[in-house]
Amino acid sequence: MKGYAVLAPGEHGWLEREKPAAGPMDAVVRPIAVAPCSSDTHTMHMGSTTGSPVILGHEAVAEVVEVGALVRGFRPGDIVVVPCVTPDWEAPALQQRGANNAHDYASMASFKYLTQKDGVFAEFFHVNNADANLVLLPKDVSVDAALMTVDMMSTGFYGAEMADIQLGDTVVVFGIGPVGLMAVAGARLRGAGRIIGIGTRPNCAELAREYGATDIVSYKDGDVVQQILELEGGKVDRAILAGGDASTLNQALSVVKSNGVVSNVTFLDPTDTYHIPAPLWGLGMSDISICGGFCPGGAYRIQKMLRLIQNGRVAPEKMLNYQYDGFDKIPEAFVAMDQKPRDLIKPVVHIQW
Amino acid sequence: MKGYAVLAPGEHGWLEREKPAAGPMDAVVRPIAVAPCSSDTHTMHMGSTTGSPVILGHEAVAEVVEVGALVRGFRPGDIVVVPCVTPDWEAPALQQRGANNAHDYASMASFKYLTQKDGVFAEFFHVNNADANLVLLPKDVSVDAALMTVDMMSTGFYGAEMADIQLGDTVVVFGIGPVGLMAVAGARLRGAGRIIGIGTRPNCAELAREYGATDIVSYKDGDVVQQILELEGGKVDRAILAGGDASTLNQALSVVKSNGVVSNVTFLDPTDTYHIPAPLWGLGMSDISICGGFCPGGAYRIQKMLRLIQNGRVAPEKMLNYQYDGFDKIPEAFVAMDQKPRDLIKPVVHIQW
Amino acid sequence: MKGYAVLAPGEHGWLEREKPAAGPMDAVVRPIAVAPCSSDTHTMHMGSTTGSPVILGHEAVAEVVEVGALVRGFRPGDIVVVPCVTPDWEAPALQQRGANNAHDYASMASFKYLTQKDGVFAEFFHVNNADANLVLLPKDVSVDAALMTVDMMSTGFYGAEMADIQLGDTVVVFGIGPVGLMAVAGARLRGAGRIIGIGTRPNCAELAREYGATDIVSYKDGDVVQQILELEGGKVDRAILAGGDASTLNQALSVVKSNGVVSNVTFLDPTDTYHIPAPLWGLGMSDISICGGFCPGGAYRIQKMLRLIQNGRVAPEKMLNYQYDGFDKIPEAFVAMDQKPRDLIKPVVHIQW
Amino acid sequence: MKGYAVLAPGEHGWLEREKPAAGPMDAVVRPIAVAPCSSDTHTMHMGSTTGSPVILGHEAVAEVVEVGALVRGFRPGDIVVVPCVTPDWEAPALQQRGANNAHDYASMASFKYLTQKDGVFAEFFHVNNADANLVLLPKDVSVDAALMTVDMMSTGFYGAEMADIQLGDTVVVFGIGPVGLMAVAGARLRGAGRIIGIGTRPNCAELAREYGATDIVSYKDGDVVQQILELEGGKVDRAILAGGDASTLNQALSVVKSNGVVSNVTFLDPTDTYHIPAPLWGLGMSDISICGGFCPGGAYRIQKMLRLIQNGRVAPEKMLNYQYDGFDKIPEAFVAMDQKPRDLIKPVVHIQW
Repeated sequence: MKGYAVLAPGEHGWLEREKPAAGPMDAVVRPIAVAPCSSDTHTMHMGSTTGSPVILGHEAVAEVVEVGALVRGFRPGDIVVVPCVTPDWEAPALQQRGANNAHDYASMASFKYLTQKDGVFAEFFHVNNADANLVLLPKDVSVDAALMTVDMMSTGFYGAEMADIQLGDTVVVFGIGPVGLMAVAGARLRGAGRIIGIGTRPNCAELAREYGATDIVSYKDGDVVQQILELEGGKVDRAILAGGDASTLNQALSVVKSNGVVSNVTFLDPTDTYHIPAPLWGLGMSDISICGGFCPGGAYRIQKMLRLIQNGRVAPEKMLNYQYDGFDKIPEAFVAMDQKPRDLIKPVVHIQW
Repeated sequence: MKGYAVLAPGEHGWLEREKPAAGPMDAVVRPIAVAPCSSDTHTMHMGSTTGSPVILGHEAVAEVVEVGALVRGFRPGDIVVVPCVTPDWEAPALQQRGANNAHDYASMASFKYLTQKDGVFAEFFHVNNADANLVLLPKDVSVDAALMTVDMMSTGFYGAEMADIQLGDTVVVFGIGPVGLMAVAGARLRGAGRIIGIGTRPNCAELAREYGATDIVSYKDGDVVQQILELEGGKVDRAILAGGDASTLNQALSVVKSNGVVSNVTFLDPTDTYHIPAPLWGLGMSDISICGGFCPGGAYRIQKMLRLIQNGRVAPEKMLNYQYDGFDKIPEAFVAMDQKPRDLIKPVVHIQW
Repeated sequence: MKGYAVLAPGEHGWLEREKPAAGPMDAVVRPIAVAPCSSDTHTMHMGSTTGSPVILGHEAVAEVVEVGALVRGFRPGDIVVVPCVTPDWEAPALQQRGANNAHDYASMASFKYLTQKDGVFAEFFHVNNADANLVLLPKDVSVDAALMTVDMMSTGFYGAEMADIQLGDTVVVFGIGPVGLMAVAGARLRGAGRIIGIGTRPNCAELAREYGATDIVSYKDGDVVQQILELEGGKVDRAILAGGDASTLNQALSVVKSNGVVSNVTFLDPTDTYHIPAPLWGLGMSDISICGGFCPGGAYRIQKMLRLIQNGRVAPEKMLNYQYDGFDKIPEAFVAMDQKPRDLIKPVVHIQW
Repeated sequence: MKGYAVLAPGEHGWLEREKPAAGPMDAVVRPIAVAPCSSDTHTMHMGSTTGSPVILGHEAVAEVVEVGALVRGFRPGDIVVVPCVTPDWEAPALQQRGANNAHDYASMASFKYLTQKDGVFAEFFHVNNADANLVLLPKDVSVDAALMTVDMMSTGFYGAEMADIQLGDTVVVFGIGPVGLMAVAGARLRGAGRIIGIGTRPNCAELAREYGATDIVSYKDGDVVQQILELEGGKVDRAILAGGDASTLNQALSVVKSNGVVSNVTFLDPTDTYHIPAPLWGLGMSDISICGGFCPGGAYRIQKMLRLIQNGRVAPEKMLNYQYDGFDKIPEAFVAMDQKPRDLIKPVVHIQW
């Protein structure tokens, strides 16, 4: 079978692979919609962590083709939503109450596509622990909306959840790309009062307002920290980092009150370093918590995201403003994601077999 | 009246002041026991934040001398425990549920001694909002034990509370000075399994074991991170920073698991800077929370600390291994705290009038 | 001065009182808008808890007339929002982190109107701890909207907060009177997916849908428990009790999943009794938490409610569908509240002096 | 093979069964130590819930005899600790963050022994999802201590965890049988100040004190509620129900403060009913939470319990004061558990094959 892969650092193209096989608890599926993500383009630029070529892609809605002997909830022909994080649920560390399902013993251990096995830009791909990870596409949810639950919504909303927003809080969201847009929507869903989005692209700003942002601040209009403090007339309650680099944390620490939280869902460059002068974190005593975490996975999470869509609480498919049709358009969509034309929010490829 | 003060950066000595007066909600008290703390010696070296001389000291048990017209719970002659953090409880920001009482609008806003008014190394000192901040010394608690609640216990235990320890967790406590020792005791009181104390001084190590440490690791025996990982056979659940500098956070991040917490109760030098390579915090996605906060204050907090002592859960007075008698011994005790002879844990001065 | 009072159980009418005086930390205010509440009519029917006549009313927006010598944030002429729960913030028990501000040592201890002093249906009324309890009416919030924060929003939203709703949860709200409507709005603000309101009155049902209910279930259409289970295709995640009597808890326990929460904000009749067969609560082991609490008070809470209105997150004034003008219309509005005509949601009286 | 079973309501005896077989993810083990529990004797008196005879017993340490093809962590000969609650970890509902592992869709769904399959009083018994549920017996933990983790410690400690004890809180534990004793130990491990145990049996009282109780109150000395209020000089912070019946909840509600918690780990009789007069729960507004839950299960939980034993935080084996040797002594131990001689705390049967 064919898959679109990182071949070497900076090099991408089609790759021929054997069709994956399902172990007793697994499924093999074929994608009906995929969305390239900046994690895919990062992986392309950095090279795969395994050192050899790996098929890209980790956001997909798919059709079940084969299931293992122990799988009870799914059968070939089912249309399923596939979380980008698919834990092996037998790991005792995942039983820790309150823990993020993305991790067991190590950071991102349950993010298997790209890092431990081939991704979803393929004719077929593998899903471990199918019963625990897959969700049937509900009749009243579009493929596009469902596709946005598997990473963008789960990640962006996690930013809002970690921020522990209280009713009426003012929340700043740094970055209004697709993850930031979902962090804005998530902040509204957790009951924020004012939501200040930090970004410059007009269509992102417009969509941010639609998702709940009350104010948009752009670095083009001057120092971001100063603008936030003036807008709010003081410090804010919470900040979510969904863009920028390590230095953005310093901006967040500059605007958040004592007893506040800064949460991070931005994937940093491995060569980046946080430099935080001690006074910016109250000499260690600011009572500002700093949280950062990875997209929660598994079937339960996705079910909950779908419930929000089914009940009209969020319409994430509005982000999919670059639409492609056909498996062979994956390279084009991927390149768009990499080059980020100014009006791109998030691309999607629909595939018919 | 006389008080022992920072006169200029690095300069300390007796100062003559007017006796403070009690506003309607306040009390004026005279100390019967005080304990110098490294925050006092830091303030001496840095100079007062107000720019003019300020009387040092913020840990005291005292006798009430005068109360304001609105004070209902106290009268002259009462022996009281005085939290080092004394909020003005009318501030709406303090009504935030779950917030640390040390802060309202700004970091450490409720830590008034040293920073906003004269401290407790004086013949008399002032206590705002007496009804909300003072606690009567219980009959079954010694002056020494009570004295340790006002900062050392409240601060060290806060380190354990922020760490959100779950039953059976392995906890590393960096630093086993008085705050670290109380963090060890606090970690045991929250249900830690293994507690690894990081330190070198023999009598601190011994006391740490008495307070609940199961292991002591010294930097003299090699790389601390390596030693911890070997001891535990992997990463640990929680870390509490009660010593070291900004770089100690990096050690903590190196040994704590995903879904873990690092909490900080070390007061950093204002010139210090955290330098955290992104991979050490999982590229922002480690699901390790970083918390740091200031000693919780107010009467309720101290009441709870005293209840632990009354019920035999902790004996913090064991740290007071340098004992002085008489108001005029304050300079001697203060210098001991500053010079830290190798066997010093915590000094106390008892005062009879 | 005049006030509208309960004179004896079941008897109400105007009462002549001395104008209240402000202690050093207090304010005296005169109402510009008041809203009768079922707690007022209950008190009328039961008789005041003090045994002697007491002026009714606890929901008001008012003008400051007099402030005590220690009050710093307010002066005569200020238009203020007055929480119905006004704690004495010097009580150490209120310093308990995470505690509901409505309580210190005892249930509802900080609900002073009706139970400890005269209420707001008067020419003037008293506010203790003005700096900690009052909030200036923001320019961009209507009197009507602000009036709904002091009890209806704070109470209904507390129902949603206690329910610990997670993103996408299905929440049942029993009762869609004004508190239930705010519980619906609160559930949406905390991120519920489906929200099922239980009630029968058409205009309440319509407003419930506007506030976020996705489904309305009426007891007139059959057994409520059965209807909920069928609608959801199983049990739900959370239930909020905002109406009914003690037996309604049993309905909630019948529809909530393990690991769920039932929260109560209904004021029960003192003669009522919960009768819960052990199997309904899993023989004590259902892992369903049952929480019930009183309207949180104080300035910080009201500030946060106002922030939600200012940012367009909720429009509580839509509930005020019975409008009266003039101080002398208080009896008429009160009787409407007591008799509850079928289309009444919540009455308001605007007062000009 | 032979197993000791409930044959009909009130009737117990040996039963002949086929040796269980291991599915691909399962293990078959043979017990080396078992402990009868009141859940076993209850089941005997009530009859099995399946309607046909079932082998009793759910607390065991065992030797692995057979593992399924997918089991990676265990092999025949391993000595393992078997949680009494063994979830099927592929169930998405178990992925709910913060949820109790004992439940997925329904109360006690993961408590399989007695209710869904044969128990551990057998020559062999079955363990589902072996990798996720079993734990190797650590070298430094005795069989007796390990045996107490699987239900008594996990259940009693859960009572303390649900009670959300804060440092210095006063906690009442109703009942000082084995679960209550572990609730006492758990309350100490979470940082309680005073711990008041309610019970009468002298050796239980003695062990309660050893585990951390500071006071013992007996109903023989008068009204329990009155005694607690007098001892504490008012109400207490938390109560844990580890004995009694539905009416004991009323005692707890009578002694717990606003903002407190009552947690239940007592298994009630199905014919019992809670009768709670509304005023006892503050007319629904007391801000007292009522939690009740089932023993958390799975390997992670047991690992954490074992860590507490390994680090000397608790010595649960002290409860095992009736010791039996040999598989054929199970009936004798079971009858002791049923008849509860006055000095019995908990029986254990050691088995050599």
